[in-house]
Amino acid sequence: MIAGTHGNEINAPWLFEQWDKYPDLINTNDLKVARTIGNPEALQACKRYLNCDLNRSFRSSLLNNETIDKYEVIRARELLKSFGPNGTNDCQIAIDLHSTTSSMGSCLVIYGRRHIDLAIASLLQSRLGLPIYLHEGDNAQQGFLVESWPCGFVIEIGPVPQGVLHARIINQTRLVLETCLEELGKLNLGMPSFPDRVVIHRHIRSIDFPRSADGRIEAYVHPLRQGDDWTPIGNGTPLFMKSDGEVMRFEENESLVPVFINEAAYVEKNIAMSLTKREVWTVTNDWRNATMDLFSI
Amino acid sequence: MIAGTHGNEINAPWLFEQWDKYPDLINTNDLKVARTIGNPEALQACKRYLNCDLNRSFRSSLLNNETIDKYEVIRARELLKSFGPNGTNDCQIAIDLHSTTSSMGSCLVIYGRRHIDLAIASLLQSRLGLPIYLHEGDNAQQGFLVESWPCGFVIEIGPVPQGVLHARIINQTRLVLETCLEELGKLNLGMPSFPDRVVIHRHIRSIDFPRSADGRIEAYVHPLRQGDDWTPIGNGTPLFMKSDGEVMRFEENESLVPVFINEAAYVEKNIAMSLTKREVWTVTNDWRNATMDLFSI
Repeated sequence: MIAGTHGNEINAPWLFEQWDKYPDLINTNDLKVARTIGNPEALQACKRYLNCDLNRSFRSSLLNNETIDKYEVIRARELLKSFGPNGTNDCQIAIDLHSTTSSMGSCLVIYGRRHIDLAIASLLQSRLGLPIYLHEGDNAQQGFLVESWPCGFVIEIGPVPQGVLHARIINQTRLVLETCLEELGKLNLGMPSFPDRVVIHRHIRSIDFPRSADGRIEAYVHPLRQGDDWTPIGNGTPLFMKSDGEVMRFEENESLVPVFINEAAYVEKNIAMSLTKREVWTVTNDWRNATMDLFSI
Repeated sequence: MIAGTHGNEINAPWLFEQWDKYPDLINTNDLKVARTIGNPEALQACKRYLNCDLNRSFRSSLLNNETIDKYEVIRARELLKSFGPNGTNDCQIAIDLHSTTSSMGSCLVIYGRRHIDLAIASLLQSRLGLPIYLHEGDNAQQGFLVESWPCGFVIEIGPVPQGVLHARIINQTRLVLETCLEELGKLNLGMPSFPDRVVIHRHIRSIDFPRSADGRIEAYVHPLRQGDDWTPIGNGTPLFMKSDGEVMRFEENESLVPVFINEAAYVEKNIAMSLTKREVWTVTNDWRNATMDLFSI
């Protein structure tokens, strides 16, 4: 279980600190839980990262190239050595706790279509009704931490400014974490209660801010989109607005659902928001079996 | 007129960029307006500052000590050389545009009790109803930019995360700026319309987060205080909450008004919020005369 993978997302690290101090703060349901701070140096400096984004550093091309000595790549190797599936303190599941400036509420992010991730996400959605963002097929965004574990997902909570300790965010993080440990505890006892279906928001693509020829941002997120993550958009929906009032609209005959609208850290990645497709998937036997394999039931 | 004094407060700098591109964007009411970016290097890096806070660097002990070569102190000297009262492009009024993660709405911050600042603040409050925070008598917080000009004040807008371009913040900044230039334009024509009274929130003191012996934050801002700037507190009002649910309360028989509740940048300054006293002051002839002196009416 990892907090502070991004050093300016300070709520989950604070919760870990309190959990260290009060071991009964969160019930682990008899599971063996290891906790660590992803990027302690960046947390200390209250920055997302020092050299490069730790949560994009788990690419084999970086991990296996010993000539790369950026702090975050070294830290990624350390985390794998300690907590990786072959590590000294080996973990099977990576739960990576994040926060965002976008109005994402409490949600899960999973990467690719691993049965085990989908199965656990379905259990959490069934309990809390939270949306699931399936990130896949995005060549510009690779090397996420949880992909290096047999099972793993991100808990993402927002909106909260970077560097702000926030009552609501702390409590939402804690609630999702508690429910997560309850559901994993039930899996561990062979007593999961799967839903029949799960709602998935499948990543389609990201869109950048409108920019001038010299790369400067020419329009801001439209007031009707700001803070309105998870609401479907269609042909003609306002997306951006220019300083002279001109509205720039979505112009496709398709219903898509924007997420991570105006996340501060994504400006440097040229992402103003990501667009997803809302789909209802059936929970399959393969998914259920994957949980049995992992928990050796 | 200055934007980007803190490099991660990006909305006003964006407005300046647009204003450069579309000179008619904001009506200057025939006033000579110089615009500059306070901390261009920090803005580029989307950081509050590189070496030290530019908006605490205007102390004579720093400015006059040539052995101090921190970027922000050098920049403070440059700004004074260019736009200071004896500068090459001398300005009489400094308007410094900021944003905050606190729910301050649109407000003005003035430093000390200069008649001219109070007079202009009263005109803006009369037009927009915005609150005025009078910062004074705080030895821990000195060297604010606007104090180096004969007249000057801060326009502070929030809440907005650092590094987020936000429709509401852009529009609020623009509205206050437009009204400000209208009122200064009227002063310039000798046609101000002063109110009889002005409501001042006078700085009393700042309070830190409750901390453990080793300096770690032990409690977060109570959910009832979070986002509730400008609402008076009294004896027994909840201020902070610990992870075990314990509530820490305000315990004084006095009605004070908290401002800058949970501003991200103030954690390093050991400020969880500042407490002010709400007072109604009479607009005096001295204030009115100060505007006539400045505009040489």
